[in-house]
Amino acid sequence: MASYLITGASRGLGLELTRQLSTRSDVGKIFATARGDAPKLQQLASTSPDKIVVVKLDVTDEASIKQAAAEVESKLAGKGLDVLINNAGVLQYAPKGVSSMENLQESFNINVLGVHWTTRVFIPLLQKGTQKKIVNISTTIGSLALSRFVHLLPAPAYKITKAALNSLTVQYALDYEKEGFTIFALSPGWLRTDLGGEQADLPVEQGAEAALVRILGSTPEQNGQFLKIEIKGWDKDKRNQYDGSNAPW
Amino acid sequence: MASYLITGASRGLGLELTRQLSTRSDVGKIFATARGDAPKLQQLASTSPDKIVVVKLDVTDEASIKQAAAEVESKLAGKGLDVLINNAGVLQYAPKGVSSMENLQESFNINVLGVHWTTRVFIPLLQKGTQKKIVNISTTIGSLALSRFVHLLPAPAYKITKAALNSLTVQYALDYEKEGFTIFALSPGWLRTDLGGEQADLPVEQGAEAALVRILGSTPEQNGQFLKIEIKGWDKDKRNQYDGSNAPW
Repeated sequence: MASYLITGASRGLGLELTRQLSTRSDVGKIFATARGDAPKLQQLASTSPDKIVVVKLDVTDEASIKQAAAEVESKLAGKGLDVLINNAGVLQYAPKGVSSMENLQESFNINVLGVHWTTRVFIPLLQKGTQKKIVNISTTIGSLALSRFVHLLPAPAYKITKAALNSLTVQYALDYEKEGFTIFALSPGWLRTDLGGEQADLPVEQGAEAALVRILGSTPEQNGQFLKIEIKGWDKDKRNQYDGSNAPW
Repeated sequence: MASYLITGASRGLGLELTRQLSTRSDVGKIFATARGDAPKLQQLASTSPDKIVVVKLDVTDEASIKQAAAEVESKLAGKGLDVLINNAGVLQYAPKGVSSMENLQESFNINVLGVHWTTRVFIPLLQKGTQKKIVNISTTIGSLALSRFVHLLPAPAYKITKAALNSLTVQYALDYEKEGFTIFALSPGWLRTDLGGEQADLPVEQGAEAALVRILGSTPEQNGQFLKIEIKGWDKDKRNQYDGSNAPW
């Protein structure tokens, strides 16, 4: 019975990953974190009180992360944490172009520094776990090689910080490879969530399901890689977002 | 007579680029910036007082950048700035591995946010210039594709922020392409400077000379690319740092 911790679980992909994991018989405790009020998550947790544990955690506040880790450690009662999914993130816009960007620092604090802080605080619990998986939710929008295809999306801080997150992911992957960790970046595609908007390609349920296929199926061979989900029958787009292969950096 | 602005010119590559540019007959004013005391730069400037203008500029302080830009604008007396070289940067270590990294935010502020702030403040002057070139000094150490080859260098904040700088570079390149800008990242190789250390591959003079070949020879075709210097006869290393081709992201 694997244990999971998912950040940013109050809504969107994080909430849906929590919901789908809670229906699986091979999943034990799911620590679903949110920085503030999370009525949808609380409602979901009430339907699965033996599995879902709602934990307060703000990725931009190291003290909050440490407090959350202490709570998780206590609830695990001596066991390790098996899978960490760094899902919390923000997409911020600069409609007048990169030179008008005022939110790069804030995006960086949430999308990169927050993942760094969360990861290192939970590594001791992951070292005691059986799977040692860390999944950083990224996006092909952060791919440098694909940047020309997403130029029209006026979100430079998102693109830059997701590229930085990919690099952070690789640094952790290389450092913890010898200990048997599997640490990778995963692009879940463009999903209909508050972040993705109503025009997105896929319902969040489909994206979460495909993301779990990649997460559950990952092995140390995927350590340090940049994975995409697979949606069979999806017409190829310029970024090949749904072909299940690795994304270019 | 092209005009240049070079940040971080108090020492190392920035100082040497200033020195070499000051000997060229096709170069006019060189605005060489430093955040604090810069005795070597002042000494160099005193030997070339008609060309080199020392300007105080701290890339982590927007007000300082704006003040520097006002000074540069005044000295240009109605002309534009032709080439901006964002050279100021920092290499910070985390000897105990990525999870011990405490300097990611500071590295980001200097290596990424500082370039963003400097670039956007000088863009109006560059728009009035004849070359519209922006060169961001990067490194193949920040290449995600090459990360395994540099894992032993315990400088995760440097790697992550240079990857982010590369993404910032591409965002600017795509936004200003239509106006005829040439904006690229340039890896100058491993140079014997305070930053590179004594064991580095090349004397700074050789690296600066090769970097200037790339900078002076660049055209809009290089916009948005990740250039390497060329050192003829250099034995291939794993990163192919000196073959003059483009680096992989």
